[in-house]
Amino acid sequence: MPLPAYHPLMPPSAALLDQLAAVTGPAGVVRDAADQAPYLKEWRDRYTGMAALVLRPNTTAQVSEILRLCNAARVGVVPQGGNTGLVGGQIPFESGTEIVLSTTRLNRIRSVDRSGGSLIAEAGATLAAVQNTASDAGLLFPLSMASEGSCTIGGNLATNAGGIAVVAYGTARRQVLGLEVVLADGRVIDGLTALEKDNTGYDLKDLMIGSEGTLGVITAAALRLVPRPVETATAFVSCPSMDALSKVFTETKARAGTLLTAFEFMSARAVEFAAQHVKTARVPLPLGSPVYALIELSAPVAGMAQPMLESLLSEASDTERVSGAVIAATGTQSAELWRLREQMSEIQKFEGGSIKHDIALPISEIPRFLTDAEAIVARVCPGARPVPFGHFGDGNIHYNVSQPPGMDRQVYLALWDPMSRAVHDLVDARGGSISAEHGIGRMKRDELRRLKSPAELDLMRGIKAAFDPNGILNPGKLL
Amino acid sequence: MPLPAYHPLMPPSAALLDQLAAVTGPAGVVRDAADQAPYLKEWRDRYTGMAALVLRPNTTAQVSEILRLCNAARVGVVPQGGNTGLVGGQIPFESGTEIVLSTTRLNRIRSVDRSGGSLIAEAGATLAAVQNTASDAGLLFPLSMASEGSCTIGGNLATNAGGIAVVAYGTARRQVLGLEVVLADGRVIDGLTALEKDNTGYDLKDLMIGSEGTLGVITAAALRLVPRPVETATAFVSCPSMDALSKVFTETKARAGTLLTAFEFMSARAVEFAAQHVKTARVPLPLGSPVYALIELSAPVAGMAQPMLESLLSEASDTERVSGAVIAATGTQSAELWRLREQMSEIQKFEGGSIKHDIALPISEIPRFLTDAEAIVARVCPGARPVPFGHFGDGNIHYNVSQPPGMDRQVYLALWDPMSRAVHDLVDARGGSISAEHGIGRMKRDELRRLKSPAELDLMRGIKAAFDPNGILNPGKLL
Repeated sequence: MPLPAYHPLMPPSAALLDQLAAVTGPAGVVRDAADQAPYLKEWRDRYTGMAALVLRPNTTAQVSEILRLCNAARVGVVPQGGNTGLVGGQIPFESGTEIVLSTTRLNRIRSVDRSGGSLIAEAGATLAAVQNTASDAGLLFPLSMASEGSCTIGGNLATNAGGIAVVAYGTARRQVLGLEVVLADGRVIDGLTALEKDNTGYDLKDLMIGSEGTLGVITAAALRLVPRPVETATAFVSCPSMDALSKVFTETKARAGTLLTAFEFMSARAVEFAAQHVKTARVPLPLGSPVYALIELSAPVAGMAQPMLESLLSEASDTERVSGAVIAATGTQSAELWRLREQMSEIQKFEGGSIKHDIALPISEIPRFLTDAEAIVARVCPGARPVPFGHFGDGNIHYNVSQPPGMDRQVYLALWDPMSRAVHDLVDARGGSISAEHGIGRMKRDELRRLKSPAELDLMRGIKAAFDPNGILNPGKLL
Repeated sequence: MPLPAYHPLMPPSAALLDQLAAVTGPAGVVRDAADQAPYLKEWRDRYTGMAALVLRPNTTAQVSEILRLCNAARVGVVPQGGNTGLVGGQIPFESGTEIVLSTTRLNRIRSVDRSGGSLIAEAGATLAAVQNTASDAGLLFPLSMASEGSCTIGGNLATNAGGIAVVAYGTARRQVLGLEVVLADGRVIDGLTALEKDNTGYDLKDLMIGSEGTLGVITAAALRLVPRPVETATAFVSCPSMDALSKVFTETKARAGTLLTAFEFMSARAVEFAAQHVKTARVPLPLGSPVYALIELSAPVAGMAQPMLESLLSEASDTERVSGAVIAATGTQSAELWRLREQMSEIQKFEGGSIKHDIALPISEIPRFLTDAEAIVARVCPGARPVPFGHFGDGNIHYNVSQPPGMDRQVYLALWDPMSRAVHDLVDARGGSISAEHGIGRMKRDELRRLKSPAELDLMRGIKAAFDPNGILNPGKLL
């Protein structure tokens, strides 16, 4: 299949900028460089860019008009939610010819259907706002991640975000009943139906989810809410090996079934870093075990999760698959265990430069992968320190590698590409994914082209050309 | 967006038929009219067609070669699984110029990963074979429907089949970790990874699922297996009104959470028909209630589902939302209750012609829809008898309408299109779907064009043109 023949993008004219500003009115226009700065920089400073204008529409009709104008003028548009993305997908390039379309003012909760178990949120509503609305209705919106106070539901869906409860509830994709999307030419698809089943043609909804703003701009979503668990039990355990931990997972999953709501793992080094640098929580077990896990069960009736967790850990201890375990006795203790886990990524900055990989593997491949990856990392940078941790229960490892102590940070970070290629080659050989939950954005575009099959890339380019023939939507991202 | 400029399809030459026959060898070629007959007729006789050749490849490589040859010659190919589909998607048209590609010999279970909880099945494996393989591994493949003995997993995925356990486990889509697909030009996409998380580009997997063989031929799938429940409790209840039943559902869902594995409903007339015509099971409650439900809870530990169900029904009885209830005391009794429900569609033939609708609605809309639909049906055909039943828990109603007693069957069935249009208009007005789980196929193509937005139809046509530029895959179906 030939490459789509994109028309070249153009810098916006002064007249177009005035037209665009008139669409949102002054409250939705950010012109000043200092005011624009927060929209042009990824929070870890890895990606920065320039924009011709930052717009903050607060209705779907405004989004539609902005896209219609930009499409007619062939001007690139970069959709942006809470700007918490880690792969640069939400940051414009350096040309200064793109429009940033921030959804942060498009942030209403339009409706809540308590008996049907759903709500409709606009794209710019924060994940925390959606969670709180669900909670106020006595229900649960199960998507959860460290950035939930600032990330938006639109960004969550555009990137098919994952987080800590995927083992039970699936990724962002699975929480969605319907979408309202504005297409590149400004047409609005009103798919906000609260339907569990709908087999009327191609699955446009799931195609939009995870497309990182390159196929359309999600302006609102109908989201599924689930019953809130009545009882939650949380344990922190140490295991004598990754193989032992893997067996604990298999056994826990088999016995607890749908009650298993989290199974996170942390390497010895990740826990050592936490012990040194996390001030708000202590590690409740002795350091030095090869690996640790945080296990959570949630049940719809009281008195069920805790005894089941105790019984599982007691058996795992008898068979020496678990060497130490604590079960949280209070909500505060549970929150403290979670704090340890959630600060894993953040605290790595205290150990110098960190080269990060967001990968997924078939669960049964994880122990062998971790062993083999150590050798590969050492070949790229002797002395570099892998700090793997992540969502073991859904196969997602944050395979972060801290620099050797004493090495110059910039010299180490210059090894990012060779290190990543080496790690991704191993992931690919083991049937894994080079982007489990963060997406492709700017960061992994070359790696996607290197590792996806030509047939799949052809299909993706064909879809892009059909949805956005002028190529105005988040140009240069993902594909 | 302009319509894709399909090249016209051609009848296959004798030389091509010989080439195709050589691909599979004699064991995979069905030439004789009598032998072809079972592949050319839908089991309810609603759709019949002709084929230039029926091919039964037994490897992915053969499927690839067949499609490569047909694509080069611009010959249409109709993929077919177990031929249990209800909308004619698997039946060729009457021209006799198409090739039927039956997957029934491509039916191996390639591998089972017990600890990872997945298996890889080829497209022609029956749903029952997949269920049994999972069961032998001590796990559950939760997709379940009346046709499971003969329908194939490839057909289940091509149509995103639903069935009786969607309220807990989702449709076929949600059971899929990865797909192997042959594209129109014969290229094979090997996406058989057992990954829960993979955000590397557009979601081609979910696009293939539900595309009814028009975008590619699914040849194998990596499927997720889940833990088997330890205890199951089943109840049959009667309610004084649809509103009461709706409240029972909301309450049961809120309290039982993930333990609720089925919530089926049956109208008074559906249960009366069952009492008359089902010989293998008796209706365990008095006839004459406005509506009945079959409720099932499943738990990962013993002694949990039954008490919870008893407590829920006792409260529902106290509040007069349930007027009668039986809980199955044995597996045999539970199977008998399920038999009543599963024969609902089949037995309607004893009451003459039946015009069937497979629709979905937001759950909170169902009671009002049923009331309003009665009036609409009476306007199209006075005396026609609605027999609604279905998967209340996921909003899916089989809105079947039996003919007035004594009316000529063919005269009644001639009302299919006006009746369907009237019912679909109401469904559409209430935010519902005109195809919940059966797909579009031949039956609902015109209705899809009538009711989908032009923008969505444009996107679908664009996808079709990108994936199958010669339009050889299941021509004239869905779009």
